[in-house]
Amino acid sequence: MQKVRRTERIVAMTKVLTDQPNQLFSLNHFSSLFGTAKSTISEDLGIIKEAVVNYGIGIIETLPGATGGVRYLPYSTTDRIQQLVEQLCIKLTNPERVIPGGFLYMSDILFSPQLMTSVGAIFLTKLAASKPDHILTVETKGIPLAMMTARAFNVPVVMVRRDSRVTEGSSVSINYISGSTRRIQTMSLPRRALPQGARVLVMDDFMKAGGTAKAMIDLVHEVGAEVVGTAVLVATAQPEDKLVRDYCALMVLNKIEDTTREIEVQASPWITKGDLT
Amino acid sequence: MQKVRRTERIVAMTKVLTDQPNQLFSLNHFSSLFGTAKSTISEDLGIIKEAVVNYGIGIIETLPGATGGVRYLPYSTTDRIQQLVEQLCIKLTNPERVIPGGFLYMSDILFSPQLMTSVGAIFLTKLAASKPDHILTVETKGIPLAMMTARAFNVPVVMVRRDSRVTEGSSVSINYISGSTRRIQTMSLPRRALPQGARVLVMDDFMKAGGTAKAMIDLVHEVGAEVVGTAVLVATAQPEDKLVRDYCALMVLNKIEDTTREIEVQASPWITKGDLT
Repeated sequence: MQKVRRTERIVAMTKVLTDQPNQLFSLNHFSSLFGTAKSTISEDLGIIKEAVVNYGIGIIETLPGATGGVRYLPYSTTDRIQQLVEQLCIKLTNPERVIPGGFLYMSDILFSPQLMTSVGAIFLTKLAASKPDHILTVETKGIPLAMMTARAFNVPVVMVRRDSRVTEGSSVSINYISGSTRRIQTMSLPRRALPQGARVLVMDDFMKAGGTAKAMIDLVHEVGAEVVGTAVLVATAQPEDKLVRDYCALMVLNKIEDTTREIEVQASPWITKGDLT
Repeated sequence: MQKVRRTERIVAMTKVLTDQPNQLFSLNHFSSLFGTAKSTISEDLGIIKEAVVNYGIGIIETLPGATGGVRYLPYSTTDRIQQLVEQLCIKLTNPERVIPGGFLYMSDILFSPQLMTSVGAIFLTKLAASKPDHILTVETKGIPLAMMTARAFNVPVVMVRRDSRVTEGSSVSINYISGSTRRIQTMSLPRRALPQGARVLVMDDFMKAGGTAKAMIDLVHEVGAEVVGTAVLVATAQPEDKLVRDYCALMVLNKIEDTTREIEVQASPWITKGDLT
């Protein structure tokens, strides 16, 4: 009976921990939740910790001290990362994705909760050291990617708008020249959305010349916050010289041909070199 | 030793199942993953099933037959639903949320991955019977809510745009009159995004007169798909007579006063009556 109860407790604890990545739970929390001594909870956590490592499904981290506790980090293994990115590359090279004008249709991938959850775990794994406390994206197609990455980091998403809407109050706006269309555009950030000194990870679905990412970075600096990284799902190989120097892309789009419907996508060097933080 | 291995297996299985809600896994999948007999996996699942029910953190469902398997449904309990909605109501009545013009600032809530994950579990719990296979939303602020609900249902999100963008190919468009602003607006849906006969749950963050939701519903019918439900986070009490008759709202905004900064939000009858499914 005692054994079953331990196993049941472990099931519940595993669910609670893995369901809220990066959320710190005190041992007292579990102790009162299960009506069990803290020493027993510690033993349970030891078992969960080992299982999670053995099966390569992340890390359970214990932080000591009064403000300490335990949390789950959904780190991916190098193998799993390369597998997933390979899969995405194959999906993306489907000729039916070529849209007249030489654009790449990605919405089905961007709006798949499962794929974006896996992609979020990749960005967490590779960018954990940058310790962002906010993720910034611009409407519209980068939002799901940003949300799922934010879920893995356990931080809020802040959305930049392409115009300033009345429903979000006072905003900071900047004008920028979109690198690909060469047109002047406006971007705005509600003042209350991002605190001064915030550590911001800038994310988007796609980067060509980098004008949009550059504008987001400028906007972050404008409100007195810090950019700790810039990450996109796909970056084009050309132009090589982008407006943003340091960025992380999962994949590189080498070529997309309107007439022949040829698409060439590959895992970025950032992924293939395989060094995990 | 055997006991520890079982417990470790159970930790891994719990993680895999709860991490991908509504995803069916065959017993063979786990059997080959762990190098264990199917009968042993069945016993493990029995323990997980009981634990999940006992701690009120969802349901493990086993489907028999060759195409069967096991899946996790993150159903919320009535208590937890009412607690969360109560919490959200308190958050939303903060006077600082009044934006000049009588609008309610909700972006911080809408873009919180944790809150939206919990809200997604509520919509799954209450709307499971409608069996949607797609969730439709309109850019922009409904996207996180739609993504997290879609994650719980394990279905893709389809996004309607407020104009038709060149990067998504051929689209179906309709004009509609926004109920609140009384202006003619356009909405468009990429043709390839929604298959004929799809069962669509229409979602948005906010409903006032219902013009936007009505237009989304019309668009779904336009492409030969079926609407199985309409759900929003907050609906206004006024106008009572909305353009959409059947909709589910988590909360009702009774009042928002620009000058006095008074906000009145309450759980909707759909939540407080407490009947699940």
